Amino acid sequence: MRRIADIKAASAVLQWDQETYLPQGGAHFRGQQISTLSELAHGLFSEDSLGDLLRELVQKEELTPAQKRNVERTLEDYKKNKKYTSAFVRALSEQINKTFHAWIEARKQNSFSVYEKDLDALIKLKKEETQILGFVHHPYDALLDEYEKGATVSLLDKTFATLLPPLEELFQKITAAPQVDSSFLHQHFPEQQQWQWGLHLIKQLHFDFEKGRQDKSEHPFSTSFSPQDVRITTRIDENDFGNMTWSCIHETGHALYEQGLPDDQYGLPLGEACSYSIHESQSRLWENNVGRSKDFWQFYYPQLQQYFPGQFHNVDLERFYKGINKVQPSLIRTEADEISYHFHVFIRYELEKKLIEGALATADIPVFWNEGYKTYLGVTVPDDKRGCLQDVHWSHGSFGYFPTYSLGSFYAAQFFAKAKNEIATLSGEITEGNTESLLQWLRTKIHSKGRYFTSEGLCKDITGEGLNGRYFLNYAQEKYTGIYTN
Amino acid sequence: MRRIADIKAASAVLQWDQETYLPQGGAHFRGQQISTLSELAHGLFSEDSLGDLLRELVQKEELTPAQKRNVERTLEDYKKNKKYTSAFVRALSEQINKTFHAWIEARKQNSFSVYEKDLDALIKLKKEETQILGFVHHPYDALLDEYEKGATVSLLDKTFATLLPPLEELFQKITAAPQVDSSFLHQHFPEQQQWQWGLHLIKQLHFDFEKGRQDKSEHPFSTSFSPQDVRITTRIDENDFGNMTWSCIHETGHALYEQGLPDDQYGLPLGEACSYSIHESQSRLWENNVGRSKDFWQFYYPQLQQYFPGQFHNVDLERFYKGINKVQPSLIRTEADEISYHFHVFIRYELEKKLIEGALATADIPVFWNEGYKTYLGVTVPDDKRGCLQDVHWSHGSFGYFPTYSLGSFYAAQFFAKAKNEIATLSGEITEGNTESLLQWLRTKIHSKGRYFTSEGLCKDITGEGLNGRYFLNYAQEKYTGIYTN
Repeated sequence: MRRIADIKAASAVLQWDQETYLPQGGAHFRGQQISTLSELAHGLFSEDSLGDLLRELVQKEELTPAQKRNVERTLEDYKKNKKYTSAFVRALSEQINKTFHAWIEARKQNSFSVYEKDLDALIKLKKEETQILGFVHHPYDALLDEYEKGATVSLLDKTFATLLPPLEELFQKITAAPQVDSSFLHQHFPEQQQWQWGLHLIKQLHFDFEKGRQDKSEHPFSTSFSPQDVRITTRIDENDFGNMTWSCIHETGHALYEQGLPDDQYGLPLGEACSYSIHESQSRLWENNVGRSKDFWQFYYPQLQQYFPGQFHNVDLERFYKGINKVQPSLIRTEADEISYHFHVFIRYELEKKLIEGALATADIPVFWNEGYKTYLGVTVPDDKRGCLQDVHWSHGSFGYFPTYSLGSFYAAQFFAKAKNEIATLSGEITEGNTESLLQWLRTKIHSKGRYFTSEGLCKDITGEGLNGRYFLNYAQEKYTGIYTN
Repeated sequence: MRRIADIKAASAVLQWDQETYLPQGGAHFRGQQISTLSELAHGLFSEDSLGDLLRELVQKEELTPAQKRNVERTLEDYKKNKKYTSAFVRALSEQINKTFHAWIEARKQNSFSVYEKDLDALIKLKKEETQILGFVHHPYDALLDEYEKGATVSLLDKTFATLLPPLEELFQKITAAPQVDSSFLHQHFPEQQQWQWGLHLIKQLHFDFEKGRQDKSEHPFSTSFSPQDVRITTRIDENDFGNMTWSCIHETGHALYEQGLPDDQYGLPLGEACSYSIHESQSRLWENNVGRSKDFWQFYYPQLQQYFPGQFHNVDLERFYKGINKVQPSLIRTEADEISYHFHVFIRYELEKKLIEGALATADIPVFWNEGYKTYLGVTVPDDKRGCLQDVHWSHGSFGYFPTYSLGSFYAAQFFAKAKNEIATLSGEITEGNTESLLQWLRTKIHSKGRYFTSEGLCKDITGEGLNGRYFLNYAQEKYTGIYTN
């Protein structure tokens, strides 16, 4: 497992380099090199002798609970991996490559039809994949399971059905109230100063620069080559202050998780993050629950004003706080506020579900998409680029990924409520710029656990109950009522 | 072979990252990841089925000469690789790792004795390696062959015996003549301006930034992940102008070679550089024969003066040209001039030869070293750090590498003389900052050939004769007599 982890880490280094420093001409051979490493890792993780060993080990009674969990999870992963024939893996990988390039071209031409044929071929393969993997109730469950073990359509339908109506109600109230001012975020913020400010901020949040670094890339991301080497990236928009700062905090949330995974479990499930939604809970918790709170900026805003005196000296904390939490209907998911974000996710979830069950034809995606945006966000999608071509995920074959974004927010709220409950002084500490006990709490409760639990199991272990959307709802209602009615 | 090349390229990316961007804490897992990739590549290149295939292919009559050469060279490499047991590869790799860390520690403590035990164990393994590989006349031949196919002690002894006496004579003449002034190179040259100047210069020399990049590292090096992605690094000393500029030109020489290798031969011998000495001939040719010539600076010096007006406006071209070619006895090889450089190499060559044949004990290295420096360079070595601990090569297990540095200079002089002969306008072109026809000549004669020839074969193909040290000697005598007697 260590050898496989080494190969995967090498592949991650090659991908990181591709997004940060690769010269233009290097793309072709780099793609090939990454494919070779993927094939090697897949091959090693399919060896029959490994399966035999795992089946033998899982019977042993002398294993510690941690060892047992490692063996069980590895065997689960192994069995799943074995379901794929190399022919299918290659076909999928090739179709993904084609679809990705078609997407790039479609975005250039601003036309979904350029993308349709390849996307349709890819969806056919994803449907085939649901058969390969198997499912009980809904084919989409098989794909969800890839990103979120145990997640199902029935569970997600219930979650959204509970949360969306009150969120819609809150959203209506907000859009009916007088809008807050955020114009001060759209002044000129020089690149170098933003970069320095970002480094300062993430250092304060205990991103460990001896075990990681930050670079620039077109799209921010985090990646990890071991708990001792966790990289994040950011991008800077000189005319939009919000673009970099909260992406820095978001990626730092992911990175703190990875830096907190146990070293000695490298290559084993207990050395891996629990799930995509729990990963996202960490980034969202830092970005939103902490990083868009008044407590947080009570400490950091004076520092920010020193970094950008010209831009912020006339803006008081209250106005800043409201501005950075502005809620408004929008076309682009990644720029959406904390509330409407979930409508963006829900539209994609509904769409994917229907595509995979065969109730929606690929050609009908734009119409379905645009209707969803009209219904849930009240906006008219002007073109495909700002509509159904905006996200890269489908072009990567990632169907079933989007729901984890919403689940992440919901888990974040539930965990943060619990942390506040268990650390009585937390609010006060945050107003003093001290997030150490919060980080320690997350380290103990989540990071150090690796993949011992499923998301649901972890949530129960920490909070005594499974995922409960009320925490997010309470958080959102309290926060945004405060911002929009005071 | 393509898969093996992909894995080696991945390993090279990991090593590049290690020297440029790796956070401090990442070293442990990174070392492990690189080892895993090396083992994988070694394993794939040892598969019996590959050997069977190669032996079958090499018999085929329908192969083109290029195909035939690819198969023959691959089979040679394969046979050599098969001689090593995995146990020996692992033992060597582990001892190299230990020795490297002992070297770091020994340099800290400035004491060879800290290093002695591990170096001795490594030398024992290298002696064992000579038995594994086999040799006809001298055990050191087996190690030389790793870096320079066909090179032998007998050949090198002859080369040095021919060249060293006239070089010593020239060196004596120079040191007896009035010294040139180079104080202007030791003013303050701000880092950022040097960096920009370096980028400008290497771009002018046709380093292709769409197929490569430059970064900073502690020790300058070049590496390649494909002809489309060739990376070089440099370092900057704000108080020593010479430190960065000629290292930029040197590494660019290496990089132009790699960027000129044929794409369609990726992973095959014809897609690889001919040898270490030919690689070094390319870096030296650009660094010295071009980059320290008056022709070159006739064009570039006015540009340099614009980059650093404060530092150079009082220094005329003649003074600058002499200053950058200052010859003087020195302790450190990498800082040595074009003449005394070869004494540094010769001392190491004599030492390695004696170590491997068992005529010198590891413990006696410092004494032998210091005597050599007294004899050939007339300097007293003040401590081990500036003596036998200065180079990393032994700690990497690289015995047999140093001679290629001298061979590189000798080949460079021979190739450059031929180029001048075949391109009548070359001198004039260089004075106009035009090195395109020189690069084209190198591309046609050397870069595009890959590993079709051995060094000696290539040299004959280009110049009509094998390596002939007279070209270097003529070059050195003419150039340095001009500098030190006018």
